[in-house]
Amino acid sequence: MENFIAYNPTTLHFGKNILTSLGTTLKEYGNRVLLVYGKGSVKKSGLYDRIMDGLKMEGFEVSEYGGIKSNPVIEDVDAAAAIGREHHVDVILAIGGGSVIDSSKIISVAIPVQNPGWDFFTGKAKATKAIPIVAILTLAATGTEMNPFAVVSNHALGQKSAFGSPLTFPKHSFLDPGLTLTVPRDYTAYGVADLIAHCFEAWFGIGETTLTDRFVISIVKEAMEFGPKLMGDLHNYDYRERIMFAATMALNGMTMYGRSTGDWGVHSAGHCLSLLYDVPHGASLTIVYPAWMRHFKGQIGDRIAQLGSALFDEKLTDVESIDRIEAFFKSLGCPTRLSDMNIPGEPGEALFQSMVHTKVNGGHMKMQEEDYRALIGLYL
Amino acid sequence: MENFIAYNPTTLHFGKNILTSLGTTLKEYGNRVLLVYGKGSVKKSGLYDRIMDGLKMEGFEVSEYGGIKSNPVIEDVDAAAAIGREHHVDVILAIGGGSVIDSSKIISVAIPVQNPGWDFFTGKAKATKAIPIVAILTLAATGTEMNPFAVVSNHALGQKSAFGSPLTFPKHSFLDPGLTLTVPRDYTAYGVADLIAHCFEAWFGIGETTLTDRFVISIVKEAMEFGPKLMGDLHNYDYRERIMFAATMALNGMTMYGRSTGDWGVHSAGHCLSLLYDVPHGASLTIVYPAWMRHFKGQIGDRIAQLGSALFDEKLTDVESIDRIEAFFKSLGCPTRLSDMNIPGEPGEALFQSMVHTKVNGGHMKMQEEDYRALIGLYL
Repeated sequence: MENFIAYNPTTLHFGKNILTSLGTTLKEYGNRVLLVYGKGSVKKSGLYDRIMDGLKMEGFEVSEYGGIKSNPVIEDVDAAAAIGREHHVDVILAIGGGSVIDSSKIISVAIPVQNPGWDFFTGKAKATKAIPIVAILTLAATGTEMNPFAVVSNHALGQKSAFGSPLTFPKHSFLDPGLTLTVPRDYTAYGVADLIAHCFEAWFGIGETTLTDRFVISIVKEAMEFGPKLMGDLHNYDYRERIMFAATMALNGMTMYGRSTGDWGVHSAGHCLSLLYDVPHGASLTIVYPAWMRHFKGQIGDRIAQLGSALFDEKLTDVESIDRIEAFFKSLGCPTRLSDMNIPGEPGEALFQSMVHTKVNGGHMKMQEEDYRALIGLYL
Repeated sequence: MENFIAYNPTTLHFGKNILTSLGTTLKEYGNRVLLVYGKGSVKKSGLYDRIMDGLKMEGFEVSEYGGIKSNPVIEDVDAAAAIGREHHVDVILAIGGGSVIDSSKIISVAIPVQNPGWDFFTGKAKATKAIPIVAILTLAATGTEMNPFAVVSNHALGQKSAFGSPLTFPKHSFLDPGLTLTVPRDYTAYGVADLIAHCFEAWFGIGETTLTDRFVISIVKEAMEFGPKLMGDLHNYDYRERIMFAATMALNGMTMYGRSTGDWGVHSAGHCLSLLYDVPHGASLTIVYPAWMRHFKGQIGDRIAQLGSALFDEKLTDVESIDRIEAFFKSLGCPTRLSDMNIPGEPGEALFQSMVHTKVNGGHMKMQEEDYRALIGLYL
């Protein structure tokens, strides 16, 4: 095992009708709430009205920023931070999926200072203080609800980057699987794929740690058992619950105990697809992962065969493992080639340039320009 | 799944030579340190001198309380708290295993008030403030390093009771597997058994939660793989590392996600063995667990057969599962009958009275006096 530090201060409230204690929780931090949300689904579902009515009844002063995009952009972060500053908010209430909660993390450290949000990604600003975040999760996918990470795009610079600090864990996250019952088919599938990809990024990192490997296999097997069931019955509370819980466990730190780093090269490459063509995050991962495994299988020892054999409970080669994993992604309805996404023109060169520009790389499997070309060739 | 709240603020520092950052960590809390430790092994091993020299070199003011017993008693807690009060300590540095760290948790909440420590177990005192605890673990077993629980005996009252509050998590715990290399054979085995028993207490609780069940099986399988290897090679760092990590995971909350309660009836019954005959905690569990499973197998559905089948990778009945688990405990060198412990006289009636007196019970499988008699009959 590699030396590691485990730290996760988020309080997770999980289950049916778990929002009943939301008001009490917010009150711990003060009375002025900045509500942050996305592009409409929380209004359509009635959740927005329900929360807003509750907050007003309990006497909170509420300011708000709606319209966070599903691949979130830094302009929204800055606009929301300005509102938070103006209203001297005590706490951020983030209602949504990864994009809203990730954005809120940067908003939370940007409010106390005058810097634009992007300064945290470049290192120009340091996170030294943060407005506490309480999150209500409406999409099971990224695990942001129980980790400090935020990924935001800056289109002016052509970059999609990650930031995290011990200050950017949500203080509390409320997970009611019932709130995910209306997530559409495609985003449900992307969520399952995303959580599996998070486990893979840990699996392909550095550090031999048998128990943590067992945890990783546990989470992926759970997703492979209940993901397909959920795709066959999108309104099933029980399946939503299993997937929501698995998604949180997939990126709350436990898959990293005993490793010095994950790989994250697939995420790094996938971000270019989102940046250039607005490919949903989960879809970018199911496109890049099979290609990445095919490209690196000669260099990564028996980790791919180990993974496939553990997941499918039979002795598989690396090639068989990759084929099975790819087939599983397809069975969910996820794309496994960029051509599945109907991108106009020939994106290969633009993607290569974006990979060069954003310095796509992994923590374990290092990438050079020839790897970029090989990867693109495999997933186009 | 049952609704649940997950919260664990402990920072775990795990790995080889991890103590290098101890001083910096302590400094976060102040300069006056109360050192709490046990009956001599930390002095024999040289750890005490090493820590004490380091603390003095870094300018800490150190007061100390040594002599915590391996089944810890409330008198030591009160004596240590008095020293802590007298020296206005800023932080407690607990060096040892479960007994030292559990005692330190009560010391930490007792120092700020005038109450004797037992008042926290009876509810007479509430934990409203706590001196922060930094722990250095020297025995892989109880999981106390990453949970809020403390179990202490009060011989005057004939009770061994548990306490825990959100304030009694250690702030930081340092786990260097190298510090466990000198743990003797019997306590090494009891530690492995203890961590397995913690998993079982979760498994036999209330709440159907497939992923958490996978986590439980993962931890027990790890212990069943590396426990016997360790017993065959007590000075193997790698095996010590696997078991130390597994012991922490076995009781840091993750085995309880999606359950409303664990069972803990076996712990409750086992405490009477420790209380009356000073049976080591882990040994009390390997004595009671087979008996408990044999007694309750008709009432607990297929959970025993499920457990055995998952652990041994073949379809087993409940009776076969119990036999295999018992055989595994024996293979470690753990007792599975009280007669293995050379208790003088006929302890049956005294144990029954102690179970009645301490109101032994489980959170799931409820016990009456006839259950006590049946259990005792099965493990004597």
